[in-house]
Amino acid sequence: MFFASDNAGPAHPAVLQSVIDANSGYQSSYGADAMMDDVRAMVRTMFEAPDAAVYLTATGTAANAILLGTMTNPWETIFCAPMAHINVDECNAPEFYSGAKLTLVDAQNGKMTPDALRNAIAAEQTRGVHGPQRGPVSITQVTEDGTVHSLEELRALTAVAKEFDCKSHMDGARFSNALVSLGCTAAQMSWQSGIDAVSFGGTKNGLLGVETCVIFDPALAWEFELRRKRGGHLFSKHRYLSAQMKAYLTDNLWHDMASAANASCARLAEGLRGHNTANLLFEPQANMIFAELPRREHKRLLDAGANYYVWNGDPDVGDPDAPLTGRFVTDWSMTDDAVDQFLSVLRS
Amino acid sequence: MFFASDNAGPAHPAVLQSVIDANSGYQSSYGADAMMDDVRAMVRTMFEAPDAAVYLTATGTAANAILLGTMTNPWETIFCAPMAHINVDECNAPEFYSGAKLTLVDAQNGKMTPDALRNAIAAEQTRGVHGPQRGPVSITQVTEDGTVHSLEELRALTAVAKEFDCKSHMDGARFSNALVSLGCTAAQMSWQSGIDAVSFGGTKNGLLGVETCVIFDPALAWEFELRRKRGGHLFSKHRYLSAQMKAYLTDNLWHDMASAANASCARLAEGLRGHNTANLLFEPQANMIFAELPRREHKRLLDAGANYYVWNGDPDVGDPDAPLTGRFVTDWSMTDDAVDQFLSVLRS
Amino acid sequence: MFFASDNAGPAHPAVLQSVIDANSGYQSSYGADAMMDDVRAMVRTMFEAPDAAVYLTATGTAANAILLGTMTNPWETIFCAPMAHINVDECNAPEFYSGAKLTLVDAQNGKMTPDALRNAIAAEQTRGVHGPQRGPVSITQVTEDGTVHSLEELRALTAVAKEFDCKSHMDGARFSNALVSLGCTAAQMSWQSGIDAVSFGGTKNGLLGVETCVIFDPALAWEFELRRKRGGHLFSKHRYLSAQMKAYLTDNLWHDMASAANASCARLAEGLRGHNTANLLFEPQANMIFAELPRREHKRLLDAGANYYVWNGDPDVGDPDAPLTGRFVTDWSMTDDAVDQFLSVLRS
Amino acid sequence: MFFASDNAGPAHPAVLQSVIDANSGYQSSYGADAMMDDVRAMVRTMFEAPDAAVYLTATGTAANAILLGTMTNPWETIFCAPMAHINVDECNAPEFYSGAKLTLVDAQNGKMTPDALRNAIAAEQTRGVHGPQRGPVSITQVTEDGTVHSLEELRALTAVAKEFDCKSHMDGARFSNALVSLGCTAAQMSWQSGIDAVSFGGTKNGLLGVETCVIFDPALAWEFELRRKRGGHLFSKHRYLSAQMKAYLTDNLWHDMASAANASCARLAEGLRGHNTANLLFEPQANMIFAELPRREHKRLLDAGANYYVWNGDPDVGDPDAPLTGRFVTDWSMTDDAVDQFLSVLRS
Repeated sequence: MFFASDNAGPAHPAVLQSVIDANSGYQSSYGADAMMDDVRAMVRTMFEAPDAAVYLTATGTAANAILLGTMTNPWETIFCAPMAHINVDECNAPEFYSGAKLTLVDAQNGKMTPDALRNAIAAEQTRGVHGPQRGPVSITQVTEDGTVHSLEELRALTAVAKEFDCKSHMDGARFSNALVSLGCTAAQMSWQSGIDAVSFGGTKNGLLGVETCVIFDPALAWEFELRRKRGGHLFSKHRYLSAQMKAYLTDNLWHDMASAANASCARLAEGLRGHNTANLLFEPQANMIFAELPRREHKRLLDAGANYYVWNGDPDVGDPDAPLTGRFVTDWSMTDDAVDQFLSVLRS
Repeated sequence: MFFASDNAGPAHPAVLQSVIDANSGYQSSYGADAMMDDVRAMVRTMFEAPDAAVYLTATGTAANAILLGTMTNPWETIFCAPMAHINVDECNAPEFYSGAKLTLVDAQNGKMTPDALRNAIAAEQTRGVHGPQRGPVSITQVTEDGTVHSLEELRALTAVAKEFDCKSHMDGARFSNALVSLGCTAAQMSWQSGIDAVSFGGTKNGLLGVETCVIFDPALAWEFELRRKRGGHLFSKHRYLSAQMKAYLTDNLWHDMASAANASCARLAEGLRGHNTANLLFEPQANMIFAELPRREHKRLLDAGANYYVWNGDPDVGDPDAPLTGRFVTDWSMTDDAVDQFLSVLRS
Repeated sequence: MFFASDNAGPAHPAVLQSVIDANSGYQSSYGADAMMDDVRAMVRTMFEAPDAAVYLTATGTAANAILLGTMTNPWETIFCAPMAHINVDECNAPEFYSGAKLTLVDAQNGKMTPDALRNAIAAEQTRGVHGPQRGPVSITQVTEDGTVHSLEELRALTAVAKEFDCKSHMDGARFSNALVSLGCTAAQMSWQSGIDAVSFGGTKNGLLGVETCVIFDPALAWEFELRRKRGGHLFSKHRYLSAQMKAYLTDNLWHDMASAANASCARLAEGLRGHNTANLLFEPQANMIFAELPRREHKRLLDAGANYYVWNGDPDVGDPDAPLTGRFVTDWSMTDDAVDQFLSVLRS
Repeated sequence: MFFASDNAGPAHPAVLQSVIDANSGYQSSYGADAMMDDVRAMVRTMFEAPDAAVYLTATGTAANAILLGTMTNPWETIFCAPMAHINVDECNAPEFYSGAKLTLVDAQNGKMTPDALRNAIAAEQTRGVHGPQRGPVSITQVTEDGTVHSLEELRALTAVAKEFDCKSHMDGARFSNALVSLGCTAAQMSWQSGIDAVSFGGTKNGLLGVETCVIFDPALAWEFELRRKRGGHLFSKHRYLSAQMKAYLTDNLWHDMASAANASCARLAEGLRGHNTANLLFEPQANMIFAELPRREHKRLLDAGANYYVWNGDPDVGDPDAPLTGRFVTDWSMTDDAVDQFLSVLRS
């Protein structure tokens, strides 16, 4: 009954096996390992982007911050939703790597609205040299509310960005979960929807810790490499990152894992929907649910060993009938039994 | 015959096994995993420093840069040897994390001399607010020339630092190799020699990629944590770092691996010393050798499959008798056979 | 009829005379001039703060950014109103000097509300190391809407800051205008109201270009000096800054000039209030008015030579009856005739 | 007998008069004043560079740091002489504005030698992404040793820079003194000698505080403007900077003042050369002398009221016959009488 985060589960055995297989003999370091050639080719194929620059980092914050640093000048501002990971969960890393600032754009269900984005971008740069200049737009897919932008929604946002000659970045920490949810291709959900660079996450979806940075304009490649090294994110024994990502891409393991996580989430959502005191705040589309339950039910679930975050209050202190929001995240390794056990406690 | 770097060899099987063992069920993320508690306790025991702050990073550049960022104000300068990794091999990461600059101190055999250090520190801050202010001293142990500071040499340098109220940092990417070489304790080679913070390396000595940052003044702990996160270096699935470091510390695996690497180096050094055209530039004390050989011998060795860096010229182009410097590094996995094979080619 | 900005008028003759008087013989540079001793003493007297650190900069952006850099760690966030100069008019200077970010707090009439501030501060630092940490609160006095915080309002905001151990900064680009408006002392409007550091502006109030930075905790003085120098803001011929500020403080010239500017503003406001198509958006309390007028009236005024900013639309293009907001700022040199001439055009 | 610095003397009366004349009525702020148009045109004429971008800053550190920030990426290194102002006297401002580091190049008489520069540049970027990348070369003219690069010497240095596609910056805090010394044109000493951007100083040569930044590639103009604003160096009442620089350029006032300063220096040098215990360390070519004198003579001069820096020891403490270096700087306002008085004390 562990729903606290998709970064707390184990790595897939095939991923670990790939690391084990990589652990033999000498290999060129710093990304010159043979497996990285395979990874690069596989990512380009997956994204239908034969010229894309492809790099690995070990954390999602690094992926976002280095990409945004590469896409942003220090006198610019990055447009994002208020709940974006880059705003609330990266301890100023995007600002550190870019030297720039963030402009928060009104969002609904975790998604910036095109009108709010247009207003926010238009409002900048009306003061000449005095205000921050317009920088890139950063879109989170899956959103932090567990929703998924449709391709139309993505295109609407990147179209606004293009009106102002702004680039678009996708924080795809849960890219695979979104792909599975939409049933579309990586190309459709990225460059074909106007995205210029993607953090294609692996850590939350069954790897030990690897994200792929895909930059569709290869002219930015060398700057990315320098910023990655300057940030201390270039791995000497890079083969162990490559090995993970190669396993992830082989036979679409990413797809299987994301499908499993999403299916567990759907099973959980269905159970919650059928429960009279539960209220889903957003329509879950991937592997994350925000659900209101009375405080006493949270307490009962947590006491029974369920592990998840209660977002807006102490489950132990206060009116037992007051609704509190729980965040429930499922990962690839979640079993139906675990979900059912949780639902059974809920209903008991 | 792979002597290019100690970051190109495999991880020790016990390290990998620890990672495999860690890959089960859910674990709290971001360093709150149970194994990190073990690692912290083991590091404190090893360093005889019960209050030390202990953190893991995945790269040596990150370890150095975050530690130096924590120890340095942006208007200060960091004192180091010209050949220090932080000066030549980190693409401005220490400057990025600290906002400060580096002052290069004359060095012999990879070691700053106390007099040169005193002169360098004294020369700063003679201009009041105009010049950079005195920041920490960074000492590399094993040095980039493959030599090892004796405890007396370390104390002499940190004593100079203390004369000026400067802190001392140790870049210990090859800390274990130095410990084995000196036959002393980690405490002796660190805080008992006046060191305030250490990057205690594991990556070059048989891990997949983990360094331990040991800060003897726990008052700096929280700032380190924030700087690590802000740099994108806090791992969500931190257990895989903890697992590596735990294996490293268990039964002194670090000692066994460093001993093996140093022994291979000694075997190689002895063979080179016995060869009439070879000239060792420094007395190798750990796992790294700089040796001059005529260009034609380099060419012969490389053609035979030896893999190492020729430091100051193209082995294929130029006077065949001209001496060129080769750098030879041995790692824990190096076999006597590989060394002997190399020496046999050399002598043939 | 020049109401575009209070930074576009001339300096007061007494200020210029002081500069002329200072232009004789040799003087120690970099702030060691004799007049700076006078300025320091006069500022400490004015603020009733005998230990305050007192420094001069030549621009308001420098004053704000260096003060905030001194008060903020790079992993923190600075709380301010959305319309704050530091957010919209300094091209990321506060972020550049501090390494931190800004959190925008809901404001009414240019003033953060205590509840909104409390919510904003409380919301930060709920994510441990992941989110930005709580930094200082920055209050603009006179606000960017032309309103003035009462002493009670100031105390309410700084009390919230203190609840969370946050420091309070005052952007006092129009500090004198606010003092005159409130009829209180500099001490009352600063440290007695919980302010830790003030940018006490002179440029907008009759100087050529000088702001005084007053830091009530002298422990921050040396860091401020280093940050000022590192930012390139330490003047060699500092005497010319001192001379301006000395004139400003002599016989309360700042008070006379701010009184004149505020009086012109009141005269203008009264005229606008009496005009049937004008609508004052805020109750002007110092030297700045935001007034709605129909587009055709703006056009008529501008065509007649009035000089001011129309905030939200092109006066030449669009519905002639649509209301547009004009910003009108008066400076010390504004004459009654100029105000009356403008009002006469308006009424004609 | 004030020889401590050329930043301690008064401004020229014509400069002050220009400021006084500018102090009338309203003027557009932030560099849009009419006088700045004149300045821009005059600078372009003086430098024979009709497309050059021309900007003003109020301090030399700002001029250098913003220019270097505009010319340098944060992963690069700036090449300069060890005694360069940007290295020893700007408290990390160039590093702050650029994010980059400095590489110190061996220098003789204050001048980098072309061979040392070539070696330094060649040594960088031999480590791929690991080391800092090659950034601009910064040349100080007049050097910090009081010498002047000949046009041939300048061309030799910038030719080396161009070999490696590096740009060249000139720190011209004493640009006018060098121009007078060489008797050449501004164009010859800048772009015709391969310089890409110049800090053309005014503060040390009779202004209150203005430097002109001349960028020969106008494509960099907008970035410079944004970096200037972000650094807090854009003046609202910019007219007072323009007024100073306009006076400086009118009727070649800069030339008259630099000629006077250089002539005073020559007079002083001649007197020192004729004195048996004095030893000029460098052949003074502009307005700065480094001369060794026995400690007892320094003491006597200082006791008699001479004001200058003794560089390498306390004139009051130590062997009275030991030679100590004095630095003597003359400014435009220095009189023959003052020089003669000093020499008379020396000889007495």
